Amino acid sequence: MKPLAAEVEEAVTFNDQGLVLAVAQQHDSGEVLMVAWMNREALAETLDSGQVCYWSRSRENLWRKGESSGQTQRLIELRVDCDGDSLLLRVDQKGVACHTGRRSCFYRAVDEGGGLKELLPVEVDPKALYGG
Amino acid sequence: MKPLAAEVEEAVTFNDQGLVLAVAQQHDSGEVLMVAWMNREALAETLDSGQVCYWSRSRENLWRKGESSGQTQRLIELRVDCDGDSLLLRVDQKGVACHTGRRSCFYRAVDEGGGLKELLPVEVDPKALYGG
Repeated sequence: MKPLAAEVEEAVTFNDQGLVLAVAQQHDSGEVLMVAWMNREALAETLDSGQVCYWSRSRENLWRKGESSGQTQRLIELRVDCDGDSLLLRVDQKGVACHTGRRSCFYRAVDEGGGLKELLPVEVDPKALYGG
Repeated sequence: MKPLAAEVEEAVTFNDQGLVLAVAQQHDSGEVLMVAWMNREALAETLDSGQVCYWSRSRENLWRKGESSGQTQRLIELRVDCDGDSLLLRVDQKGVACHTGRRSCFYRAVDEGGGLKELLPVEVDPKALYGG
């Protein structure tokens, strides 16, 4: 795997846990799909392979998005914010991004009454996604 | 100020610093503008006033976006992700979101050669934004 290019290394600020935030956005529709974290290795692998790889904080390992579910994210463009502690991944999402089987993890919105309403339907049965 | 509604309080997971991540997106164009943090008070104020208020981790105070620069964010819709630790703010951004005077903080992208290219122009002189 290719290491991070010097210019990228310099622009990205990893936090004290060695992580940088990543927002995934569908490149053509503009849908914000999910937010996750990357460590240096996940970022390098993503740039090298063109398939998005995160760092799972709960499992403490590399999380190759879609490896078990098939719902992969192909990297179209990777953007870095002004202070380098957030990345914007412009991706092509295959199927659904959310483990609930919805297209985006942001499927609930605060409604007029201050409660929550659901915006997005379940497109794929989560059991089918994870072979449950 | 109205406190958070019970359903929102239950859906949002604040981290051990009492913060939740917030991604701001221009509601009509889909541009991802910036990423910042909110504490409970900032979230309640945002929902109550309809003007986006973050928590500044560096200054350790409420950060009413645009208070000094005039580049405010009017809240159109607030979405919560599946595990409640990230919010998506659908906003109407007045002027520019970035302190560099660019529309979005995500103004740099990794180019073919692994370096960085600038995507967005400076629209407002940062000195004009902050009265420098």
